[in-house]
Amino acid sequence: MSREIEELQIALRRFAEERDWGQFHTPKNLAASLSIEAAEVLEHFQWLTDEQSRQLTEEQRLKVGHEIADVLLYLLQLSDKLGIDPLAAAREKLAINAAKYPADKARGSSRKYTEL
Amino acid sequence: MSREIEELQIALRRFAEERDWGQFHTPKNLAASLSIEAAEVLEHFQWLTDEQSRQLTEEQRLKVGHEIADVLLYLLQLSDKLGIDPLAAAREKLAINAAKYPADKARGSSRKYTEL
Amino acid sequence: MSREIEELQIALRRFAEERDWGQFHTPKNLAASLSIEAAEVLEHFQWLTDEQSRQLTEEQRLKVGHEIADVLLYLLQLSDKLGIDPLAAAREKLAINAAKYPADKARGSSRKYTEL
Amino acid sequence: MSREIEELQIALRRFAEERDWGQFHTPKNLAASLSIEAAEVLEHFQWLTDEQSRQLTEEQRLKVGHEIADVLLYLLQLSDKLGIDPLAAAREKLAINAAKYPADKARGSSRKYTEL
Repeated sequence: MSREIEELQIALRRFAEERDWGQFHTPKNLAASLSIEAAEVLEHFQWLTDEQSRQLTEEQRLKVGHEIADVLLYLLQLSDKLGIDPLAAAREKLAINAAKYPADKARGSSRKYTEL
Repeated sequence: MSREIEELQIALRRFAEERDWGQFHTPKNLAASLSIEAAEVLEHFQWLTDEQSRQLTEEQRLKVGHEIADVLLYLLQLSDKLGIDPLAAAREKLAINAAKYPADKARGSSRKYTEL
Repeated sequence: MSREIEELQIALRRFAEERDWGQFHTPKNLAASLSIEAAEVLEHFQWLTDEQSRQLTEEQRLKVGHEIADVLLYLLQLSDKLGIDPLAAAREKLAINAAKYPADKARGSSRKYTEL
Repeated sequence: MSREIEELQIALRRFAEERDWGQFHTPKNLAASLSIEAAEVLEHFQWLTDEQSRQLTEEQRLKVGHEIADVLLYLLQLSDKLGIDPLAAAREKLAINAAKYPADKARGSSRKYTEL
């Protein structure tokens, strides 16, 4: 586990304990929060074209950064509760995806996605 | 930036390049994917009670781990495209939250949330 | 098609035309909006217990009503763009579900869901 | 309330009763389900361009129709539990939006959205 991530998880645990929020932080509630915050990231892109989404203003970038932070904070809390190492899980999933979508077959096609 | 996270982002860049998927990976699309994958995490908890969500079977835990991985992989790709350091953003957001919800006032109350 | 629904769809078309918003209302954007608004419904229940969610205050009920309205408005616009009759589709899906989950086998079990 | 909608809500009530699923159908769970199903609508558009999203194949249209149906079925169940008339709420919200975004000021601009 990354030291930085572990430190954040410890800080999040302390944060919740100091406020007695553990009662609200069931894995189910944290999963709902993850989804709600991810939608708030998307909200910033809702009416932008793909091109505009590549050229955020500094103000937009800052706001999106805060929403991405919220998603990550809930992801770390949920992982912590479930005893999942998120980076190890991500590395494993990337390896699975690499096997599932061989580069030579998947090249330039979004079919691999849409046919899932 | 955490070395592990940077390595994952580099691996993700290579993964997309080898498949010529950069064309699909606009920030807007990655934000939509983040939201879709977060909903897939939530799906595993959809009909569980809070109590059941605390006691996943090993099989459920493994599946949830894969979905959490998908969320993290998109979060890292989106952050990479936008030039956002997700861990730094998370640490900053946690500090903002700590100032926003003083421990002595927020204790045991979910009001701080619902009144946002 | 229900007359009330058709009337709402016509009003929504006029609303978008008067503001020249048709350019933003691609099916893809409307689908993103649907998802964003659904998350806003969920946000109202985020930290409530199941029991509390059954006993909303009048103020909460009003707020949730507005979010439900947003979801429905986007659902009607998306359906309109795609030429889908949402009520007919819902009736058809309910019939499919009835065949998929025979009452005698599905009784009292959330397995039919989680095993999907 | 529209007769067709009322009929669907009655059919949904019977459907849940016959399977003893009322225990799972708390407003909170139904709100989560609404969000999960909305993300499944979005999933079909995830990698499409705006242009492609306007020209779905018949097969895609059918699949999207089923997901839209799922969203509507949960929306009707949630509304039913909360005693909300979804069509009346939608008409009211549309009137609020019309006042909020005067046609002459909002024309051709997505700012009204992004500045919310």
